[in-house]
Amino acid sequence: MKDVSVGIDIGGTFTKIGIVDRQGNTLVDDSISTQIEGGFPAYIKYLSEKVKAMLSDFDVQLVGIGVGAPNGNYYSGTIEHAPNLKWHGVIHFSKAMQEYFDVPVILTNDANAAAIGEMVYGGAKGMKDFIVFTLGTGLGSGIVANGQLIYGHDGFAGEIGHTIVNPNGRVCGCGRKGCLETYVSATGITRTVYKLIADYMVDSELRGVSFNDLTAKMITEAAIRKDPLAIKAFEYTGEILGRKLADTVAHFSPEAIFLFGGLVKAGEYLLKPTKYQMDANMLSVYKNKVKLLPSALTDTNAAVMGASSLVWKEIEDKN
Amino acid sequence: MKDVSVGIDIGGTFTKIGIVDRQGNTLVDDSISTQIEGGFPAYIKYLSEKVKAMLSDFDVQLVGIGVGAPNGNYYSGTIEHAPNLKWHGVIHFSKAMQEYFDVPVILTNDANAAAIGEMVYGGAKGMKDFIVFTLGTGLGSGIVANGQLIYGHDGFAGEIGHTIVNPNGRVCGCGRKGCLETYVSATGITRTVYKLIADYMVDSELRGVSFNDLTAKMITEAAIRKDPLAIKAFEYTGEILGRKLADTVAHFSPEAIFLFGGLVKAGEYLLKPTKYQMDANMLSVYKNKVKLLPSALTDTNAAVMGASSLVWKEIEDKN
Repeated sequence: MKDVSVGIDIGGTFTKIGIVDRQGNTLVDDSISTQIEGGFPAYIKYLSEKVKAMLSDFDVQLVGIGVGAPNGNYYSGTIEHAPNLKWHGVIHFSKAMQEYFDVPVILTNDANAAAIGEMVYGGAKGMKDFIVFTLGTGLGSGIVANGQLIYGHDGFAGEIGHTIVNPNGRVCGCGRKGCLETYVSATGITRTVYKLIADYMVDSELRGVSFNDLTAKMITEAAIRKDPLAIKAFEYTGEILGRKLADTVAHFSPEAIFLFGGLVKAGEYLLKPTKYQMDANMLSVYKNKVKLLPSALTDTNAAVMGASSLVWKEIEDKN
Repeated sequence: MKDVSVGIDIGGTFTKIGIVDRQGNTLVDDSISTQIEGGFPAYIKYLSEKVKAMLSDFDVQLVGIGVGAPNGNYYSGTIEHAPNLKWHGVIHFSKAMQEYFDVPVILTNDANAAAIGEMVYGGAKGMKDFIVFTLGTGLGSGIVANGQLIYGHDGFAGEIGHTIVNPNGRVCGCGRKGCLETYVSATGITRTVYKLIADYMVDSELRGVSFNDLTAKMITEAAIRKDPLAIKAFEYTGEILGRKLADTVAHFSPEAIFLFGGLVKAGEYLLKPTKYQMDANMLSVYKNKVKLLPSALTDTNAAVMGASSLVWKEIEDKN
């Protein structure tokens, strides 16, 4: 019987579920609403029944469940005060799920799950020191050093998206100003497009789109169609990211930095200015040593795969 | 027979040597010139003979030699292109020393040695996630996560002193601008005193001192005597350090941050503004969780103790 893990990716609207083997093959995937009536107890019951039904179609051995969740705490298996979820306070997720399953339930935040996914299935196989930046609505970071994820003493390490790149910069959802994620993220680049429209007169198809309608996907596609303003928006984003990566390298001296998320589909429009500024601002001892790569997890199920990888990593660390 | 380790701290002018037991008691210490005639081969021979002579006075069992050196690389045991040493290129220190001794020789940079010293003998006993900042001529940082020092893939992680706090800021010895250590270090605070003399008219005993004569020790002593300009220089230093520490916490979420070095003798004049700015700029999830402490290694032999601690850490990790 084949060993499998279940990966669960919890978003504000949907929860995605996949059954994944050690090689990263997804046997089946599905999703449920995160906003189910009846609150967290009803949700966890429905989720567990769904997972059991999915498993029942296969002749497999479940070895563990991995969960990626906003504000997920690896140490306690809790989701703590996640602003995008309807469940308030501290949610004892792993404990609740273990009432339905007799296998380990391992939970962490989405970016940490992406980093372990990169190590188990993706481009970081065999690496002991690397960092994954997830460019989604916000900017998450999962940091691996000495072959281990850095969770910090309380489980909340890796918030590079909330380091400050400009003390007088853009207002951030966290209540402060100038956080990296206000520039480098899907929402960051839409803010940048509007700033550039304000500052410049260059022609662009994006001038006809309201801020409410504008998405990072539209900007990415416009850049690929060589829209000059969209390209400039990626340059602006990459320059800020690149300067920050030079600082990141001075902390960790990683072998590679991976970029994950929809914005990375812009390819060289994002990578080139990022790499240029990273190299230009880097301390000489690190120069030409650090790879900057798009994530190798390009599957639409990448977040689920990241979650499922937590299980394999845990098993392999114990052996 | 008592187990002991030898700690060696290599500076540009002097090399300090100590024989230290597991509890952190220094049985004896001494020093030799780092600039001995005959280059590195003559130096390593003289150093080894000195260590053997020191050991011969005690009925002890040598279990290892720990070395703290500028640009020291833990993985290879080499000192690489250290600007303050007369030996050029890559020096195979550990290998050379092992021709004289049949025990492990463990080498890393001074700040990493200070971090392990804090964990083995000092205020970080039992901690798994903490950071030590050494405020000397420059600013070094030794980072421990998951109970392990972060060396990075090439052995050169932990250069937080060379993260950029102001892209248009002070020229740094590394060839870039605005590095943290141009503000927060012994030389940084002397530059700050001169900036404040230029900007303000407040009275100060330091106005009579040339830049060449001015030392961080003089500024520290002036602050303790309540010299208003010296106190302002510590405030300026602490504010820049505190803002940076908020970012550092967002990377590592450490249990504590320790400050080490002569500047820390200014006590609250440095710690108060640092803590204030660290808390004011910190992401809410970390607030009131991270201790900011002076190093508990206040001994004049602290650097030697840090070096010697590398041996105990290595032995304990193997067991």
